[in-house]
Amino acid sequence: MSPEDPAGLSLLEGLHSTPARRYLSAEPIGDDVLRVILDAAVRGPSGGNSQRWAWIVVRDTAVKRQIAEWYREGWEHSYGSRREQILASGSMSPANFRAAEHLAHHLEEAPVWVFPVLLGPARSRNPRLGSSIYGAVQQLMLAARAHGIGSTLTTLYAAHEDGVRALLNLPEDAITMALVPLGYPARGRWAQPKRRPLDEVVFQERYEERS
Amino acid sequence: MSPEDPAGLSLLEGLHSTPARRYLSAEPIGDDVLRVILDAAVRGPSGGNSQRWAWIVVRDTAVKRQIAEWYREGWEHSYGSRREQILASGSMSPANFRAAEHLAHHLEEAPVWVFPVLLGPARSRNPRLGSSIYGAVQQLMLAARAHGIGSTLTTLYAAHEDGVRALLNLPEDAITMALVPLGYPARGRWAQPKRRPLDEVVFQERYEERS
Repeated sequence: MSPEDPAGLSLLEGLHSTPARRYLSAEPIGDDVLRVILDAAVRGPSGGNSQRWAWIVVRDTAVKRQIAEWYREGWEHSYGSRREQILASGSMSPANFRAAEHLAHHLEEAPVWVFPVLLGPARSRNPRLGSSIYGAVQQLMLAARAHGIGSTLTTLYAAHEDGVRALLNLPEDAITMALVPLGYPARGRWAQPKRRPLDEVVFQERYEERS
Repeated sequence: MSPEDPAGLSLLEGLHSTPARRYLSAEPIGDDVLRVILDAAVRGPSGGNSQRWAWIVVRDTAVKRQIAEWYREGWEHSYGSRREQILASGSMSPANFRAAEHLAHHLEEAPVWVFPVLLGPARSRNPRLGSSIYGAVQQLMLAARAHGIGSTLTTLYAAHEDGVRALLNLPEDAITMALVPLGYPARGRWAQPKRRPLDEVVFQERYEERS
């Protein structure tokens, strides 16, 4: 399904051409490809190699539909209801806003969702908690990209963490760290994500205010 | 300095051969290479593309020496003082433990340190705070690997966050999310990180207890 040879993409090229993909087709993703992607994910960092994580693969339509509703609540609260303000501020481009809006309204159409979960720390107040899973999530999204599969890291469902925990049968002390919808892109391309100039965000030795 | 052509490494190969590298030489890292690595880092995910981050590059010997002392305190507290217990539990291999111990005692020798910093959320209680920076940190470590430079994501200095904040001249509401020492490897190889079998950590639709 990928137009490219997965082995033909260089590491550096991959790092520079894996934007969030928010227009995803409903075309199925094979179990074999998914397994290869997850096998790349778990090679990411885990503090003390503890691997206190679980990777929940969701394809069930009813489960996706319920969580997508919660996601849309989160979208409406954080973005949808502030549409004019966000677009006026320039913090998101109109194209990015529309793509995120599209995802919110079509989330359940993505054929596969992955929830990366940490086991144990539901009550943690450690701001660096994610250091033991988001590197692996990035590996997942990069491996997907090598196979022509798009994804994006989302957390807008999180106000309903208890509901998600129940649907996924997670223990009380587990926490879902993200929802990553996966799908073959229906629109857009593997372009380099636009970012602020490096000189605005990189500092030598000491931070300083920059206008 | 890299034995390999940076462009010759495939994405999938890179994802499977970037372990934490903890034996790092003092050989300098050029500004140009470092810039290329940071430019790959910032292509990682940032929630709403807000990029409320700063990347502090530290080479100053005095600063490194002070923070390395704090790091060793953290190492001793979490690992060093529990050496026998950790090795007996099998949660870390003896080789990994020795490598981490080596890093703790030679941290300041790594020629370049990078602190990825989030601006604003020092008092955040959001457990998913790291979703807006650790993916970029993974991109940094993968880009470094493409250039033959080793790294590891560390947080053991974190009990001294206030001291680090002062040394780096960070505003009160900023938080360092990691310390990433970078250096050409002095020992070891680009092997695939050992992980638990996929069938122990991947679940279809719902989590279940597995022995």
